[in-house]
Amino acid sequence: MDPAQIIYVLDLFGVAVFGVSGSLAAGRKRMDIFGVIVLGMVTALGGGTLRDTFLDAGPVFWVNNPVYLLVAGAASTLTFIAVRILRISNRVLLIADAIGLAVFTAIGTAKAIAITDSQSVAIIMGIMTGVAGGMIRDVLSAEVPLILRREIYATAALCGAVTYVILTRLGLTDITCQMVSVFATLCIRLAAMHWHFSLPVFQAKDGNEPGFSDET
Amino acid sequence: MDPAQIIYVLDLFGVAVFGVSGSLAAGRKRMDIFGVIVLGMVTALGGGTLRDTFLDAGPVFWVNNPVYLLVAGAASTLTFIAVRILRISNRVLLIADAIGLAVFTAIGTAKAIAITDSQSVAIIMGIMTGVAGGMIRDVLSAEVPLILRREIYATAALCGAVTYVILTRLGLTDITCQMVSVFATLCIRLAAMHWHFSLPVFQAKDGNEPGFSDET
Amino acid sequence: MDPAQIIYVLDLFGVAVFGVSGSLAAGRKRMDIFGVIVLGMVTALGGGTLRDTFLDAGPVFWVNNPVYLLVAGAASTLTFIAVRILRISNRVLLIADAIGLAVFTAIGTAKAIAITDSQSVAIIMGIMTGVAGGMIRDVLSAEVPLILRREIYATAALCGAVTYVILTRLGLTDITCQMVSVFATLCIRLAAMHWHFSLPVFQAKDGNEPGFSDET
Repeated sequence: MDPAQIIYVLDLFGVAVFGVSGSLAAGRKRMDIFGVIVLGMVTALGGGTLRDTFLDAGPVFWVNNPVYLLVAGAASTLTFIAVRILRISNRVLLIADAIGLAVFTAIGTAKAIAITDSQSVAIIMGIMTGVAGGMIRDVLSAEVPLILRREIYATAALCGAVTYVILTRLGLTDITCQMVSVFATLCIRLAAMHWHFSLPVFQAKDGNEPGFSDET
Repeated sequence: MDPAQIIYVLDLFGVAVFGVSGSLAAGRKRMDIFGVIVLGMVTALGGGTLRDTFLDAGPVFWVNNPVYLLVAGAASTLTFIAVRILRISNRVLLIADAIGLAVFTAIGTAKAIAITDSQSVAIIMGIMTGVAGGMIRDVLSAEVPLILRREIYATAALCGAVTYVILTRLGLTDITCQMVSVFATLCIRLAAMHWHFSLPVFQAKDGNEPGFSDET
Repeated sequence: MDPAQIIYVLDLFGVAVFGVSGSLAAGRKRMDIFGVIVLGMVTALGGGTLRDTFLDAGPVFWVNNPVYLLVAGAASTLTFIAVRILRISNRVLLIADAIGLAVFTAIGTAKAIAITDSQSVAIIMGIMTGVAGGMIRDVLSAEVPLILRREIYATAALCGAVTYVILTRLGLTDITCQMVSVFATLCIRLAAMHWHFSLPVFQAKDGNEPGFSDET
């Protein structure tokens, strides 16, 4: 397998993993099988869909290549069946989720940098590709998105996207940049999971209750 | 009236019905008249807007034909006034909602298949056109979307979209396909409402509490 | 400074203010610094992003001009730091927010009318540019969007957008229209804040409990 194929296989793997993640979230809300499949597919395809929409680079990726639809749908359906039989280890899922995050971020950054010259835009697009699916999943579950509250997750995506952009400037090939970017995101995310790193939390000064909710 | 006109009238009817549905949801949350109109319009136009965005087929449909905006806005405003005077039967609303679902699904599938060759993409676009407006309505009301939890609803849209795709392959005219697709969705949805069909619910094995919320 | 520059500076000012508003909302939910920055950026850029997406006028504005990204990101980060030290007056924030609303609405209407002939579409796009960022902020915070429940807010945007459209028809220059539109929105919003104007609330007749939640 040449490197481009490896990236493609990892991409489909990421789609499948996020599909499983969405289905499990649907399960916690006692949705029916349709809800499970919808939430699985939205989680798996949401990030890339937003990226392609905002870049306005033609139809979104799964319109051109329905294999993504099939993988996301199949992963969600299988999850619905599997949880009745198997006990899925949370640790395995989290590691798979980290791989998905890493691959999506690298691919999103690469896609953006092929269209726009701006490195900050490419980094934002990379992060968005990695994390937006999970955010939409949580919104549809009527919860505050986990990644907004949780330890180093999108920060890992940020590091991966920055890595990609720097390596591209150094003149490395696209595939090399992607492989190293995936590796960077993955290491940071796994380290954060293992040692429970976290970022500082918003803390207002006493009596400085923030917000726009009242008019006085 | 020729069949194309019938579809167009039904489409506007669907927009109006979903506008009413969104306004009533806003009412349950005690929104003011502006909130009612916004939620009505988002519900009425949301599905088609997402479809056109993801297909990247030029500006979304209501930019090209503002009649849709006016119908959605008028339906929402009238609902705001009407509920102070009339008692609206829930049964009438649900039947009207089923008609809207059926028409939107058929039109969405037809629009997609004119642009993409992929049948699975066309089916997804049909379902999305039918159900996404209601999902956005529920998200803006800070609730888990009803259609993810409820008896045969999007499944009816799935059947309608599949019907359309099969008939197109058999070489029938676009209008015929749309009429039969509308009829199929409508029958399944009304039957499901009448006999309270429902889909199996997600059920995890004991001790297999799904989810990504904890890091252990 | 010529008028076009004034509009540009006010636009960046609006981005910064909405960035602060999003960050403070994130703070109320005890998000970490990444969540604060994401919510700040989404609030600051969300309205214009939806407008550009629905108009299908090429990549969204911040892809072409990353200065917007930097301003939104910087405003959010500074807010995260500032609330630990300063006490931010709610009154100052609300006035700044009103300026942002007014500028975004005028710019959104102007952008839309340059692309579409329809005045109703331009008005909707103007309102959307002004209010959608705040709505997405509230959805990501798992709350019913404030503007759907609160006194004259989007109504002020409506008046500003209508003002712009009328003045354009009278043949005034683009810059004049924008300045007057900003002034109109701002006056109405500030007056509404000062005298606590509000719109009538949805009120169902007794026993006319609205909604699609039950199937009977």
